[in-house]
Parts: sequence; structure tokens; C-alpha cells
Amino acid sequence: MAQEWVQMLGFAAGTMTTAAFVPQVVKTWRSRSASDISLGMYAVLTCGVFSWLAYGLLVGDWPVVAANGVTLVLVAAMLAMKLVFR
Amino acid sequence: MAQEWVQMLGFAAGTMTTAAFVPQVVKTWRSRSASDISLGMYAVLTCGVFSWLAYGLLVGDWPVVAANGVTLVLVAAMLAMKLVFR
Repeated sequence: MAQEWVQMLGFAAGTMTTAAFVPQVVKTWRSRSASDISLGMYAVLTCGVFSWLAYGLLVGDWPVVAANGVTLVLVAAMLAMKLVFR
Repeated sequence: MAQEWVQMLGFAAGTMTTAAFVPQVVKTWRSRSASDISLGMYAVLTCGVFSWLAYGLLVGDWPVVAANGVTLVLVAAMLAMKLVFR
């Protein structure tokens, strides 16, 4: 496959794995209900995405920084809502 | 920071963002309840993680292939449980 198509696939993949959290954040905010949401998942995911962000900054990989910076806001919002709404 | 520490940070980040889904899969399987889970999130996430896996295979990045291969199984399981348990 041509190099540009592979890069576009990577860009699409990063956009999807970040954007995926938007409908969950919207749903949880509207319903004020998070009993089926795993606290452990969002606790570990917040640490993991924060680590990816730090890794991206240290190696100077700006696509990694951008994708994980946005994802961090979304997963930290889910973690906070899980703690508040239960 | 030394190169090895940066690589270890990336490895830890990848392990966390994959392992994070395990407690959610276990919780949803045990409770048979997924009403607070967003169908849109897991639909988009499954496509996104599948795209990362394809990208990793095309560029020959085996850490990307391994992390996203495991994550794909977990997020696809969540998607299936959301569709079955609702």
C-alpha cells in the first residue's frame, strides 16, 4: 500500500480511538448514571493516557501528544463522573 | 531522561491502556447490565483499534500490533455484550 494511505490509516485510527469517548461522556453527563461503568477501567486508563502524553512529549511525537491530550480530557471527565454519579 | 526510561514509559503506557478494559469486561460480564455503556463509544472504538492493528501490520510495528490485538478482543467483547445485555 502507498505510504500516504498507510499514514492516512494511522491518522484515521488515532481520530477514532480518541473520538470514541465523546458519545460515552455525553451519555453519562445526560443520564447522571454510571453504575455500569468500571471505576478500575477509567482509573487505569487515565494513568495510561497520561503516560502516553508524557512519552509523546519526551520523544517529541506530536501526533501522540495531540491524540492523547484530547483523550486525557475525555477519560478524566469519565473518571470524575464515575466518582460523582456512581 | 535516559532512552531506556523513555522506552519503559511507553511500554507501561501501552500496557495500561490495554489492561484498563479488563475490569470493565469482567464487571459487565458479571452484572449482565450495560445500560450506562455507550454503544457509539464501543462501535467507534472497535473500528479505531482494528485500524491501529492494520496500521501496525502495514508498517511492521510489533508493539502496536500486540497492544491493539489484545485491546481489539476486549473492546469487541464490550461491543457484543452491549448488544446482548443492553
